[in-house]
Amino acid sequence: MNDKILSLINEGKYFEARNEISNLNVVDAAQLFEEVEQKHILLVFRILPKDFSSEVFSYMSFDLQKHVIDSMTDEEAFKVLDDLYLDDAVDFLEEMPANVVKRILKNTDKDMRDLINQFLDYPADSAGSLMTIEYADLKKEMTVAQALQYIREIGIDKRTINTCFVMDQSRILEGRISLRRLILSDESAIIKDIMDTDGISVNTHDDQEDVAALFRKYDYYVMPVVDKENRLVGIITVDDVLDVIDREATEDIQRMAAMRPSETEYLKTGNWSLTKHRLPWLLVLMVSATFTGGIISRYESALQATIILTAFIPMLMDTGGNSGSQSSSLIIRGLALEQISTKDIFKVIGKEFVVGAYSGAILAAVNFLRIYFLEKVELSVAITVSVTLLITVILAKVVGGILPLLAKKLKMDPAVMAGPLITTIVDAVVLIIYFSLASLFIGI
Amino acid sequence: MNDKILSLINEGKYFEARNEISNLNVVDAAQLFEEVEQKHILLVFRILPKDFSSEVFSYMSFDLQKHVIDSMTDEEAFKVLDDLYLDDAVDFLEEMPANVVKRILKNTDKDMRDLINQFLDYPADSAGSLMTIEYADLKKEMTVAQALQYIREIGIDKRTINTCFVMDQSRILEGRISLRRLILSDESAIIKDIMDTDGISVNTHDDQEDVAALFRKYDYYVMPVVDKENRLVGIITVDDVLDVIDREATEDIQRMAAMRPSETEYLKTGNWSLTKHRLPWLLVLMVSATFTGGIISRYESALQATIILTAFIPMLMDTGGNSGSQSSSLIIRGLALEQISTKDIFKVIGKEFVVGAYSGAILAAVNFLRIYFLEKVELSVAITVSVTLLITVILAKVVGGILPLLAKKLKMDPAVMAGPLITTIVDAVVLIIYFSLASLFIGI
Repeated sequence: MNDKILSLINEGKYFEARNEISNLNVVDAAQLFEEVEQKHILLVFRILPKDFSSEVFSYMSFDLQKHVIDSMTDEEAFKVLDDLYLDDAVDFLEEMPANVVKRILKNTDKDMRDLINQFLDYPADSAGSLMTIEYADLKKEMTVAQALQYIREIGIDKRTINTCFVMDQSRILEGRISLRRLILSDESAIIKDIMDTDGISVNTHDDQEDVAALFRKYDYYVMPVVDKENRLVGIITVDDVLDVIDREATEDIQRMAAMRPSETEYLKTGNWSLTKHRLPWLLVLMVSATFTGGIISRYESALQATIILTAFIPMLMDTGGNSGSQSSSLIIRGLALEQISTKDIFKVIGKEFVVGAYSGAILAAVNFLRIYFLEKVELSVAITVSVTLLITVILAKVVGGILPLLAKKLKMDPAVMAGPLITTIVDAVVLIIYFSLASLFIGI
Repeated sequence: MNDKILSLINEGKYFEARNEISNLNVVDAAQLFEEVEQKHILLVFRILPKDFSSEVFSYMSFDLQKHVIDSMTDEEAFKVLDDLYLDDAVDFLEEMPANVVKRILKNTDKDMRDLINQFLDYPADSAGSLMTIEYADLKKEMTVAQALQYIREIGIDKRTINTCFVMDQSRILEGRISLRRLILSDESAIIKDIMDTDGISVNTHDDQEDVAALFRKYDYYVMPVVDKENRLVGIITVDDVLDVIDREATEDIQRMAAMRPSETEYLKTGNWSLTKHRLPWLLVLMVSATFTGGIISRYESALQATIILTAFIPMLMDTGGNSGSQSSSLIIRGLALEQISTKDIFKVIGKEFVVGAYSGAILAAVNFLRIYFLEKVELSVAITVSVTLLITVILAKVVGGILPLLAKKLKMDPAVMAGPLITTIVDAVVLIIYFSLASLFIGI
C-alpha cells in the first residue's frame, strides 16, 4: 500500500496519491510521509484535505514537522499551527528551535500568544502540560435539544464531544454529561437534571501520575482540569494518559536499573547522551562497592588461612542482591500503582521477614547439602556459609522492603532504592556476617 | 461523606442513604459498600436504582460480589449477572467458586451459557479475553437519521456508542463511524459515504500486548475484534487497555527482578505464594553463582600469594552487573514498547560498545587514580584492576544489549534477560579476565 502511494508520488501523480492517502488512518499517513522524498513532501502535504492534514501533521516526527514548517511561508506555517489542537501546538513549539517559534508566533494575536506562553509555563509533569482547551461546554439551563444544537455548531473544532462539561457564568465546573446520555435522553429534558455531578476533576498543577491514577480508578475517557477556583480550564484525554503511563513505567525501570531517566527512545539517543545517563550511578556504586573491598582487606590474614571462604563470596553476594531486588521491585511497583502506601510499612516488614525466612531456609538447606555432601567442604565451613545465607536472605528481603517505603516517606523516588543500590548495601552486610560467623564457627 | 452515608445506613435510614449513594460515582459507591456492615449490604444494594446497582456491582471486590450473590435468591442473582456487560460477567464468573457459578448459570438459557463458555475459553492474555459484545452495529445503507434513531433504540444496553461499527449481512466488518461524526453530519447523509474504512481491527487470538500497541499507535478509545473470517465479534475499550498496560509493565518488572510474575497485589498475596514466585530463580541463580566460586577456587594458590586481589572482586563484580543491567533494562523496555526490534541488533551492539568504552574508560581512570594514589596499591595491581574494569564494562554492556534481543528472537520473554541473570553471567567472565590479567601483569 505504502509502496504504491510512494511510487504515485514519485511519478508526480499527486492527486491520485492524495486520494489514496486520505483513505489512510492519520497515523499511518504521518508515517508514510517519513518515507516521502524531501522534494515532494510539501507538495503532497499542501493538497491533502485541510482537517486531515492538520491531524497528520500532529502525528509527524519533530524532524519532519520542522522540515514542513521550514519550507512554508510564514502565513502558511501559522495556518498549520492554528489548525492544531492547543496541546499538540504546544508540544510542537516546545521541540522547535527558537527562530522557528518566533517566526510562527509573530503571526498570532496577543491572546493566543499569552495562552501558548501560559501552557509552555506549566511544569513538565503536571496536568496542565497534558491538557487541551478544545472542550465542549454546556449550560445547565439548556434543554437536550438546545445542547445538541449547540454541539452541532461548535463540535467540529473540539478535541472530543463524547463528554461535555457544564459550567456557570464564571466558568465554575458544575457537572458533566456524555453525548451518549444526550442522545438517549428526551429532547426536552434539562441538562441540570441529567448531568453527573460527582465532581471528579484534577487541578492544573496536579502531578501526571495522580492524573493517571484517577483515570485508572474511574475508567474515564476524558477528565476536566480546573484551576484553584474550580474554574474549568481544560480537559485531558485518555490517549495522552496512555503515554503518561508508559513514560512513568519506563522512568521507573530506568531508575531501578541505576540510570538517570531519559524520555528519548534508545535508538534515537546519542552514545554520549546514553553514557551521561548511566555514568553517575555507576560511579557512585563503584565507589560504594569499595567499602565491601575494605571489609575483605580487614580479614586478609584470616582469609589467607582459610582461602576456601573466598570461593563462596560471589554466591553469597549475588543471592543477597537478588533477594533484595525481588522485594524492592515489588514494593516500588506497588507504590507506583498505589496498591501499597507508606503506612503499610509494618505489614511489609512482617511479610518480607516471613518470606525471607522461608526462602532463606530452603536456599540454605540446598546449599548445605550441596557443599557438604558434593563438594565435601568441612562441616564448620558448610555451616558458616549456610547460616550466612539464611541471615543474608532475610536481611536483604527486609531491607529491600523498607528502603523504597522510606524513600517515599522522604519524598524521594522509591525506584532509586532498587536492585543496584540494595546489592551494594547488602554486599557489605553479607561480608560482615560471613566473617563474624567464620570466626565463631571456624575460629579464623 | 462516606461516614455520613454509613451512619444513615446504621440508623436504618436506607432510603436517605440510597439517595446519597446514587449521587456518588459508581466506583466510589462500590468502595463504600466495602465498609458497610454485612447485615445491611443486601438491603441497601437492593434499593439502588437498577442500572446504577449493576455498575456498582461490577466495581466491587470479588469477596463482596460473592457475599452479595450468596445472600440472594437464585433468580435475583441471575438478574444481577444478566445486567452486567458480558466481559464483567465473565470476569466475575472466573473468580467465583464452582457452586456459585453453577447456581447462577442454571437460570440462563442455552445460548447465553454457550456464549459465556466461549468467553471463558479464550486464552488469558488474548484480545478475546478483553472484549465485550455490547457494541452498536449499523448498516452502511442507513442514513444518519436512521442510524441515530436505531442507536436511540439500542444504545442503553451498549458498552459504548461513541464509536459504532458497520457490518454487512454476514457480520463482516466494513467500517466504523463515531457518534460525533453522526451528530455533526447531515441527517440525510449515507453511512457508507462518511464511515472510516481504514480496516484497523484485532483478532480474537491476538496477544493483549499487541492490542495495547495498536491502541497506543492510533489513539483509539474502542477497537473492533474480528474472527478469522473478519466477522465482528466484539469490542475492546481503552479502560481495559489501561489495565493491560499496567499489568504488562508489572510483569516485566517482576521478571526483570528474577521473579515468576503474579497478578495478585502484593498485600493481598500470601507469604508462601510470594515465596513460591521468588524461590525458583533464587535457586537457579544461586547454583549458577557457584561457577563463579569455582573460578576463584582454581586460582586459590595464586590468590593466597596476592591476597589483595580479593579485595577488588566485589567492586568489579558489582560494576559489571550494574553496567549490564542498565543496557538490558533499556533494551527490554524498548522491545516492550516496540521502539526496538530484533533486526536492530547490530545497531544495539555498536551503541553498547561505544557507550561501554566511554563509561569503562572513565570508571577505570577514576578507579586507577583512587587505588594507585590514595590506597597506594602496587602499580601492577592498579593496572590489573583498572584494565579488568574497562573490559568488564564494555563486555557487560554488549552482553546486556544482546541477550534480550536473542531471547526475543527465540520467542522467550526478553525481561528474563535482566539484571540478575546478566550479573551472574558477567561475574564469571569478570573473574576469568581478572585472573588472566593478573597472571599477565603481576605474574601470579
